[in-house]
Amino acid sequence: MNAAFVLYDNLTALDIVGPYEVLAGHSEVTPHFVAARAGKVRCDNGLTLHADFAFDDVPAPDLIVVPGSSQWRSALDDEVLIAWLASVHKTATWTTSVCSGSTLLAKAGILAGRRATSHWAVVDTLAADGAVVCNDRVVVDGNVITAAGVSAGIDMGLTLAATLFGEMTARTIQLAIEYDPEPPFDSGSPRTAPPEAVAFLRAALNGS
Amino acid sequence: MNAAFVLYDNLTALDIVGPYEVLAGHSEVTPHFVAARAGKVRCDNGLTLHADFAFDDVPAPDLIVVPGSSQWRSALDDEVLIAWLASVHKTATWTTSVCSGSTLLAKAGILAGRRATSHWAVVDTLAADGAVVCNDRVVVDGNVITAAGVSAGIDMGLTLAATLFGEMTARTIQLAIEYDPEPPFDSGSPRTAPPEAVAFLRAALNGS
Repeated sequence: MNAAFVLYDNLTALDIVGPYEVLAGHSEVTPHFVAARAGKVRCDNGLTLHADFAFDDVPAPDLIVVPGSSQWRSALDDEVLIAWLASVHKTATWTTSVCSGSTLLAKAGILAGRRATSHWAVVDTLAADGAVVCNDRVVVDGNVITAAGVSAGIDMGLTLAATLFGEMTARTIQLAIEYDPEPPFDSGSPRTAPPEAVAFLRAALNGS
Repeated sequence: MNAAFVLYDNLTALDIVGPYEVLAGHSEVTPHFVAARAGKVRCDNGLTLHADFAFDDVPAPDLIVVPGSSQWRSALDDEVLIAWLASVHKTATWTTSVCSGSTLLAKAGILAGRRATSHWAVVDTLAADGAVVCNDRVVVDGNVITAAGVSAGIDMGLTLAATLFGEMTARTIQLAIEYDPEPPFDSGSPRTAPPEAVAFLRAALNGS
């Protein structure tokens, strides 16, 4: 299985590294880090990742993983990225996203008529491109899987691992990454976080 | 606050990206990705990260974050890395690790007499260097914080964020990364995972 982990300027690193860590260690997966051009790609909090391939080098991946970005509106203007996503989705076995990565899938026409999720602060924007907005953490609709914000990519990866490799393997991967979460606070959702945090982030992530 | 995110060959990417994503977006944190030499560093599942600095360029970071590796025994032979850790710990405000990164701290003499944790499959090895072995997910002893395997770095980062920036900021970061975990299985700990998964990984991670 050729997996395309998609990189672009100002992506959120954890969005892509979560699913990568869950999936790429499996012997059946060949990971390809791919961007408009091979070379350095800088993430939104300063880390630089390396794209081993250009989009043209990976025309038909079996699995596509698209991360989000805190500058997601700018990413929607990346016509090369959007066109490549629309193209490779046609032959992919699985097309997936984490966080605001689903806004890129929506722009590429992939979510029309599908149930889909995204980061809580931007999920409602998916409706403009015809998606059926869901607030679940991981949403599977046909061969498209979307995940909620940032850390939800780990849950998405495990869900996909169970489908691809079976539940026993997914459980073993979960143990390998010791994914037995103990957040020190209960503040990971707009339902539980302080209202001022919700308002602050909603404004920050929508450019107002 | 100058933060040194430490890179070395075959590190586990999620170990370092978890705390980075939690901490590096804060305006008071200046992230430095540092390795023996600046340039590409390949992770154990194939992703390549970029070190912006060599160890010599970052002689006195305020915060040190050390990731683990599935090839952690080989990493213990990296004398340049171990010597730099021992040196920078002397002046750091906080020294932290994720997963088997704590075995590097132990080798550098940083954990002698301290309570510390690590990936469940390797945590017992810390005792040989004088650490008091703990099985908690995040262990704070003085200015040293160690985390359990891989994904525990997110919990560690949030714990540290609350100490550095206050609980309200830590809660806001948790909401920003939508850390409201919903693992599809309860298999993230040797207490809950299938026994054959525990046995398989224990052997794999201890080279037998």
